[in-house]
Amino acid sequence: MPQPISYADASPQVRAVFDDIKATRRVADVNNFWKHLAHDPVTLARTWVSVKQIMAPGALDALTKEMIYLAVSVTNGCEYCIASHGAAARKAGMSEAMFGELMAVVGMANETNRLANGYRVPVDEAFKW
Amino acid sequence: MPQPISYADASPQVRAVFDDIKATRRVADVNNFWKHLAHDPVTLARTWVSVKQIMAPGALDALTKEMIYLAVSVTNGCEYCIASHGAAARKAGMSEAMFGELMAVVGMANETNRLANGYRVPVDEAFKW
Amino acid sequence: MPQPISYADASPQVRAVFDDIKATRRVADVNNFWKHLAHDPVTLARTWVSVKQIMAPGALDALTKEMIYLAVSVTNGCEYCIASHGAAARKAGMSEAMFGELMAVVGMANETNRLANGYRVPVDEAFKW
Amino acid sequence: MPQPISYADASPQVRAVFDDIKATRRVADVNNFWKHLAHDPVTLARTWVSVKQIMAPGALDALTKEMIYLAVSVTNGCEYCIASHGAAARKAGMSEAMFGELMAVVGMANETNRLANGYRVPVDEAFKW
Amino acid sequence: MPQPISYADASPQVRAVFDDIKATRRVADVNNFWKHLAHDPVTLARTWVSVKQIMAPGALDALTKEMIYLAVSVTNGCEYCIASHGAAARKAGMSEAMFGELMAVVGMANETNRLANGYRVPVDEAFKW
Amino acid sequence: MPQPISYADASPQVRAVFDDIKATRRVADVNNFWKHLAHDPVTLARTWVSVKQIMAPGALDALTKEMIYLAVSVTNGCEYCIASHGAAARKAGMSEAMFGELMAVVGMANETNRLANGYRVPVDEAFKW
Repeated sequence: MPQPISYADASPQVRAVFDDIKATRRVADVNNFWKHLAHDPVTLARTWVSVKQIMAPGALDALTKEMIYLAVSVTNGCEYCIASHGAAARKAGMSEAMFGELMAVVGMANETNRLANGYRVPVDEAFKW
Repeated sequence: MPQPISYADASPQVRAVFDDIKATRRVADVNNFWKHLAHDPVTLARTWVSVKQIMAPGALDALTKEMIYLAVSVTNGCEYCIASHGAAARKAGMSEAMFGELMAVVGMANETNRLANGYRVPVDEAFKW
Repeated sequence: MPQPISYADASPQVRAVFDDIKATRRVADVNNFWKHLAHDPVTLARTWVSVKQIMAPGALDALTKEMIYLAVSVTNGCEYCIASHGAAARKAGMSEAMFGELMAVVGMANETNRLANGYRVPVDEAFKW
Repeated sequence: MPQPISYADASPQVRAVFDDIKATRRVADVNNFWKHLAHDPVTLARTWVSVKQIMAPGALDALTKEMIYLAVSVTNGCEYCIASHGAAARKAGMSEAMFGELMAVVGMANETNRLANGYRVPVDEAFKW
Repeated sequence: MPQPISYADASPQVRAVFDDIKATRRVADVNNFWKHLAHDPVTLARTWVSVKQIMAPGALDALTKEMIYLAVSVTNGCEYCIASHGAAARKAGMSEAMFGELMAVVGMANETNRLANGYRVPVDEAFKW
Repeated sequence: MPQPISYADASPQVRAVFDDIKATRRVADVNNFWKHLAHDPVTLARTWVSVKQIMAPGALDALTKEMIYLAVSVTNGCEYCIASHGAAARKAGMSEAMFGELMAVVGMANETNRLANGYRVPVDEAFKW
């Protein structure tokens, strides 16, 4: 595996992104995701700008957004993302009771998605609008 | 495709489930998902009892739960579930602005899940607890 | 969409595959999957040879194999495959009661797969052998 | 990661579920999945009741059900579930020859699901019933 | 379903994005994807800027990029994306022979991904670098 | 986990496949995937014959095929396949700049696949042909 790129070894272009991540999130260092993405500075910069825009509170608050991110990551089975966004959701205020209910919904949705597929259920007229 | 089972044609066992769905959700009729699942009364009853328990407000409110359900369904590409839970989320209070932000988070999570996979990013020590 | 290639319009190479499918399955015509795959005769021939070998009764009987095929197709949400392998499984002897139980297992497996992901459950020593 | 909850540390409510799992499966201890799910006693109880009902022999025997569970888990890439349900299927009588054929079917189904998607094959009239 | 937003009904902000899509791709109108995304002008603008940057020829040519896009869309079973990126790949020079080989690779990768999962194959030392 | 089958312990039937893999790829030993698949000599032989046919240069060159294989593996989150086909693609000529662009396309495709799902975008007439 390519080694992660630390701040000390990063180019000025990469450091600028790392600095903005650290300032925005008020953390001492960026997590491994960004250190690996730093191998492609263009993708690093675009991804961070997108994540920063998307995850900022708006019509949905930061906690709800983190929980949605976690629900997707659990569905896809992305181990890294489950770990990192599980931590981010807890930092944003997700209690263990909330995590338990989130997991129950994610599990049930994955189950009924397949029941709907397998029973070949046609979309109700009322849902077609 | 097997035909959906309407209330008029349903067994007393199935009608009892349909009645509870209608009473709980305050709707005049159940949607197609339940009418198709009615071909297997055991699965129908178990699924409804589970959904009723899981989707009731608790540590998470009903709207947040519906949005998580929708996020999973979009990730899995389940057309029926996107249509039905999109409607349910809107009924529970999801505005179009909230839907737009939900979709942005779902899209980004699906993207970064693959970036983490492809770059083979190891889980940070801080996320291992 | 490219048009399906019918027997009348097929090359001798494609006809030979169609003939073998019809003889093996004792059907009057091949289904759409093969008529579309016929646009690539190499893939058509290789896929048919593989399917014929894999789906022949062996340590597992034909019905069990069709039900496994259906379970995978439902999990992936492949509409065509759910329709065609649902029909094949029924032809091989799957009753509606068996279908109902298959769907219940598929649904539960999809649910618990995500519960295991989200709770980050480590593999038991006993399962590592 | 949250630590698994052992029998010694479990609440009476959780112990009751653990006791039923051990009695039903005739095992000395529950596996990690249940010890982690024990962080949410409501989900633990509901999931166990559902799994117990679904996996009991009925129109399908226990072995067939375990193989379907395994096929779904392999398709989703759930490492824990592949390990635990691989063990369960073997315990229920799956020979290595049966496992080999199961894997061949799962592999082929995942391949042809994508061929059907990519060639945009329309569902045959005969499969629409 | 929300109606697509046509150029005539679009806000100046949305029109600016539509204009850039049309100019960049030299097309008379944008396709449905953009007309639906226009319900969220922020996501519309960000997605277009990202797609424009990512799909421009660089170390990989435009055709290779479109084929990779198509391979992902086929794997995920996204009907819309298979249709639109299938068209885009053909426009960029993908012949039917190339499409056939692309589909063969996508099918085989989806098969062997599951064989690797199910046989629980450990990563070779040589691939760990 | 079942142990991999080394050349020294392999049956003549398995050795013949291993020999062909080594000769075709000009490698000193086969990788773990084949050593595990060797538990089922029928699947081993069929899979190798298919892979050899599919991955040979044709309308698409070997590098493009490996990159498509990698894109699918990243989308599915198959750790083994990402490692092995990442190595194979690099051996076939994929530079780190090409890898970076491949990952950007894979990420974006996974994102827009979900945007198309969630916004329920109907296929344009122009893409229906």
